Amino acid sequence: MKPDEYLEGILNDNRRILGQAITLIESSRPEDAELARTIIEKCLPYSGKSLRIGITGVPGVGKSTFIEALGNKILKSERKLAVLAVDPTSERTGGSILGDKTRMEKLSANENAFIRPSPSGDSLGGVARKTREIVILCEAAGFDTIFIETVGVGQSETSVHSMVDFFLLLMLAGAGDELQGIKRGIMEMADAIAITKADGRNKENAQMAAREYQKALHLFPPPESGWQTKLVTCSALYDEGIEKVWETIREYITYVQGNGYFEKNRSQQAKFWMYETIHQMLKDNFYQHKKVKEVLPGLEEDVLQGRSTSFMAAQKLLNIYFGK
Amino acid sequence: MKPDEYLEGILNDNRRILGQAITLIESSRPEDAELARTIIEKCLPYSGKSLRIGITGVPGVGKSTFIEALGNKILKSERKLAVLAVDPTSERTGGSILGDKTRMEKLSANENAFIRPSPSGDSLGGVARKTREIVILCEAAGFDTIFIETVGVGQSETSVHSMVDFFLLLMLAGAGDELQGIKRGIMEMADAIAITKADGRNKENAQMAAREYQKALHLFPPPESGWQTKLVTCSALYDEGIEKVWETIREYITYVQGNGYFEKNRSQQAKFWMYETIHQMLKDNFYQHKKVKEVLPGLEEDVLQGRSTSFMAAQKLLNIYFGK
Repeated sequence: MKPDEYLEGILNDNRRILGQAITLIESSRPEDAELARTIIEKCLPYSGKSLRIGITGVPGVGKSTFIEALGNKILKSERKLAVLAVDPTSERTGGSILGDKTRMEKLSANENAFIRPSPSGDSLGGVARKTREIVILCEAAGFDTIFIETVGVGQSETSVHSMVDFFLLLMLAGAGDELQGIKRGIMEMADAIAITKADGRNKENAQMAAREYQKALHLFPPPESGWQTKLVTCSALYDEGIEKVWETIREYITYVQGNGYFEKNRSQQAKFWMYETIHQMLKDNFYQHKKVKEVLPGLEEDVLQGRSTSFMAAQKLLNIYFGK
Repeated sequence: MKPDEYLEGILNDNRRILGQAITLIESSRPEDAELARTIIEKCLPYSGKSLRIGITGVPGVGKSTFIEALGNKILKSERKLAVLAVDPTSERTGGSILGDKTRMEKLSANENAFIRPSPSGDSLGGVARKTREIVILCEAAGFDTIFIETVGVGQSETSVHSMVDFFLLLMLAGAGDELQGIKRGIMEMADAIAITKADGRNKENAQMAAREYQKALHLFPPPESGWQTKLVTCSALYDEGIEKVWETIREYITYVQGNGYFEKNRSQQAKFWMYETIHQMLKDNFYQHKKVKEVLPGLEEDVLQGRSTSFMAAQKLLNIYFGK
């Protein structure tokens, strides 16, 4: 199929063609990469018009149940929703959403929803780049709401935070969970925090936790957006508080569109990703260099064993790379 | 002067020659860089034998007064101390230690101490690399204790943490300071936290803060070293608790030398810096490329204004760089 045929299929929201184009982005074959790039470039003029929402939380927080609930809520107001993921560990664990898709039964059955597991990859940088490209395709296919899910491990939150308009942190009451948020500075990135599973005997705990987080948040310096992070409790099981989350997102968007932060944030993100892409591609090119590949493991071992310094080993590799 | 003359001067702890060699490292002239590299390589076999101590804390915490007090304490036990800094903002602010040197009167007058302001530079990566190279020279000159100071801004702590054996965080009681530490995940990196200015009316506050931090630290997962972060209160003004800090450092070193973490940490740091150096040099080479330099500002502006995507701009620059 030719690039223009892909484009037409995507613009018509042909899911089979959209899926195939995404597979090209995910592929590691150079000829696929070339074609994928052309398709992305063709989709670019049609992209940028969605609301991009990042959703994070540690495993066990009930992310897929929450996404199922919020997603179904959103779809009632005639929106189109794509659910993507950035999960650098997905190759090992078999994919976060892939496994979760069965837990998003209603959502996956809805024709206005499109669920796609995280691209696999060695590096967070690579996975994140692919997801950003998939966002472009989904936007061109007319999805006006994009969820980007990420698991609460490593640096993936920072990465997702830099590609979304709104960042939602899911937390559980109790269980030392407070710490996990604070620890990674994730609380500070959140535009809203939703305490999940606030039902039954857990309801009171959740409300108490919400108050405590709200207090803790007051200690942080105000974010650049000028927005005060909101605390919400919710239960996906009983469909309580889910509407409130969606309201909060819309309030936020109105607020930042009003004060100019929405556009400013997107520009800054684009600039950030330009440099990220450059650095990633420089590294890719370096580590794919035949001779570098051969020599690297031995030199790394020399450094670990103290037979060479980090500086000398790096210099040697760069001399090889630059053909000196 | 020839490289061997530099080496001889450094090994004899000739401060004038040591200073000149450091100036070569700090220089941005390519021919200086070449000479500096040769000198570093010659110094390498004589390096690695010092105790490297990172010291951080926000402005106002009393870093220079503390360093003056701890430094003078250490010098009484026949050690030789070099005080360096990683401060990527130094060009703008006029240097942290440079200004502070006047506040380290006794220390700068002691012939067993050597104080050097932070190298200047655009990027933290560059500044950090230069400081690591200066450490090698100082170790070759016989300094057995190296302080690496950094201001509590940005990512410089992470950088310093990855080049030292012991990481000390200075904090003030009160003033919402608790937050500044937690925020950047710096508390977790600290092997000890010293509450400064614990004197007069502030003494009780400091002790209370110490207890609270100690409690908070118990919530963190235990560090890889197996060491439990210690809390100390001190007053540089009244020379109280300073000895305790030094004791804590020595205790830590004995502990991690015993369980093998000391060596392991150094190996891991060396490996980390090998990759950091490679990535830094790849970027340097890219941004110094004549044509890239010419085209970059315009493309960045295009991205900021939404006339080009980050991906397309990056691709264009890389095509130019790789001569495609």
